[in-house]
Amino acid sequence: MNAPIKSEDMDVGYDIPAVVGMNEADIQTPCLVLDLDALERNIKKMGDWAKAHGMRHRVHGKMHKSVDVALLQERLGGACGVCCQKVSEAEVFARGGIKDVLVSNQVRDPAKIDRLARIPKLGARAICCVDDVTNVADLSAAAVSHGTTIECLVEIDCGAGRCGVTTTPDVVEIATAIDAADGLKFSGIQAYQGAMQHLDSYEDRKAKIDIAVAMVKDAVDALKAKGLDCDIVGGGGTGSYYFEGTSGVYNELQCGSYAFMDADYGRILDKDGNRIDQGEWENALFILTSVMSHAKADKAICDAGLKAQSVDSGLPFIFGRDDVQYVKCSDEHGVIADPDGVLKVNDKLKLVPGHCDPTCNVHDWYVGVRGGKVETVWPVSARGKAY
Amino acid sequence: MNAPIKSEDMDVGYDIPAVVGMNEADIQTPCLVLDLDALERNIKKMGDWAKAHGMRHRVHGKMHKSVDVALLQERLGGACGVCCQKVSEAEVFARGGIKDVLVSNQVRDPAKIDRLARIPKLGARAICCVDDVTNVADLSAAAVSHGTTIECLVEIDCGAGRCGVTTTPDVVEIATAIDAADGLKFSGIQAYQGAMQHLDSYEDRKAKIDIAVAMVKDAVDALKAKGLDCDIVGGGGTGSYYFEGTSGVYNELQCGSYAFMDADYGRILDKDGNRIDQGEWENALFILTSVMSHAKADKAICDAGLKAQSVDSGLPFIFGRDDVQYVKCSDEHGVIADPDGVLKVNDKLKLVPGHCDPTCNVHDWYVGVRGGKVETVWPVSARGKAY
Repeated sequence: MNAPIKSEDMDVGYDIPAVVGMNEADIQTPCLVLDLDALERNIKKMGDWAKAHGMRHRVHGKMHKSVDVALLQERLGGACGVCCQKVSEAEVFARGGIKDVLVSNQVRDPAKIDRLARIPKLGARAICCVDDVTNVADLSAAAVSHGTTIECLVEIDCGAGRCGVTTTPDVVEIATAIDAADGLKFSGIQAYQGAMQHLDSYEDRKAKIDIAVAMVKDAVDALKAKGLDCDIVGGGGTGSYYFEGTSGVYNELQCGSYAFMDADYGRILDKDGNRIDQGEWENALFILTSVMSHAKADKAICDAGLKAQSVDSGLPFIFGRDDVQYVKCSDEHGVIADPDGVLKVNDKLKLVPGHCDPTCNVHDWYVGVRGGKVETVWPVSARGKAY
Repeated sequence: MNAPIKSEDMDVGYDIPAVVGMNEADIQTPCLVLDLDALERNIKKMGDWAKAHGMRHRVHGKMHKSVDVALLQERLGGACGVCCQKVSEAEVFARGGIKDVLVSNQVRDPAKIDRLARIPKLGARAICCVDDVTNVADLSAAAVSHGTTIECLVEIDCGAGRCGVTTTPDVVEIATAIDAADGLKFSGIQAYQGAMQHLDSYEDRKAKIDIAVAMVKDAVDALKAKGLDCDIVGGGGTGSYYFEGTSGVYNELQCGSYAFMDADYGRILDKDGNRIDQGEWENALFILTSVMSHAKADKAICDAGLKAQSVDSGLPFIFGRDDVQYVKCSDEHGVIADPDGVLKVNDKLKLVPGHCDPTCNVHDWYVGVRGGKVETVWPVSARGKAY
């Protein structure tokens, strides 16, 4: 029997869902729980794969927004640094001790460019993406004014249809401008194909990355012919890393979701036709939720709704249960179909969120558990850092 | 010409999107912006309506999660207090000076019940909902142990299909148990029909509330026959308040979204067939976003994606513009169709979010603007308070 935790035990001036040493059963819900064993296995596995294939792994910090997870990825997975999407995230990672930080995105606003230029003063290498030659002068002026160096990758839109240029001459033009600019260093290519990551079929994904690799190879070769070497040729995600990682063109992977997994990624299939959450990766991230009403016999209401997750990629599934199903999500409630009435009020369930990235971004804490005990409580360090 | 804000001006130890006195044009994006004139008009209008109809208005704090907005609703709109959905939210409102706080939800977890029982010590009336007679003893024990009173409403499921009981005998049984319990006070009925709020047609919404009113009247009459008076008969939202408010049965409204408006609510129609955001209420809440890439001629990429909003109820629309359209949302990016290429990098746009409640919950700050200047920067005080 676990003694219930007293609320006074958690009066630390802010809300925390757990304290270290607490029984898993006493964690306050809804909150994010990490299965530390599964997390560590995922991190080691990807790190080992990258090493075996001669690739650097720049882990994607936009997924977890956690300095603690990033440091674990460096320690256990040999990560060379992080990428993230915003300057304000990059500041958090740099302040947290990550020495090599790529903002895998454009930085255009004057105040954000100024902040980016100051990141090297925090002790980290600062890299960003460029897809417009008119951005180069602004980046250069900020770096010069702070006496720092901003490294720049030219972003190629290799199929995602978002940021990035689409022709080799455009890549060469921007790279040449970067190379000529004071305070900047041309460091290579960013070419992440995000749109294909969630295609179910391995072969469909491969076809998309074949196109990306051909585009990137053409650009890298043209740059080389101009005397511009690519220190970084970066891209690759959880649904594609084995393609970029064996392409002979890319040298850095940028995987994020592999570490935590989610319902949407879990559904895609590996080359043998198996779901990637059934062998390749383990579910390490859960939304712990409690039943808080069961006034109808066949329906339980839990305390994890839209304020505890993002449902942009579909509803969560209930881990390890096929007798109950999360069927509806409103602001603070989840409706769970319980046809046999097996659930009781205060029962806890582990939800695998539809989409890990925006789900992590609504929470303040990760509760790390091992062997039924709370081992760590980590802040979601860059939560809300959207600037 | 506005001088660009220097990033040093915002080095206050945490990220803020704006400082008071700044020009609106210099606000850092993406962030939430409140049009203070529109907000104040919305608040006054609903307050005046409630007063004219002899109704109390207990504003829904789960929408904005802001002590500052709640206090404004008391001052300008005559609000009698707030409702919210979680004990941790209620603590924030009570600590912020709201003296009358209803957790319009079940409280079942022992630690949460304990926290609820201590809210009166913060100087606020504490009310919660009950839909299970077995909850009464736990609530009673906690109130007795802290020497406080928890007021209880019996929740009726009047059509939303979530929490709440569905028969008058069940209501009477629970009310009787509450009335007999030490430390508890039976204070009435909670009957919010959430599921109908977003039906487009006024007549369809009226039909649903007619059913709710009949259920609630039956329960209130049965309770009265047992000598149990309802101090509070609460319910009503932005899509229905005129029904509950003229029912002769309800005496407290619980509207939330009217103050800010959003795209999903804006689409529903008033009794004359007009969208409610075209006269009844004004859009007061916006996600301010910047164009940060325009590498394709007909497509602009902005900096507000899934980390800046919830798209559970659809994509945002761009306020005041019919030449450009927000068409796709990924983690950190929004894709904006710009068929005539009218947008430039660093142009700012005001997005009306699909669903205000979970969108506000991902942000840390509201930037209040008036006349082109930043007048206030309010914390989203109960952001992430999901416990």
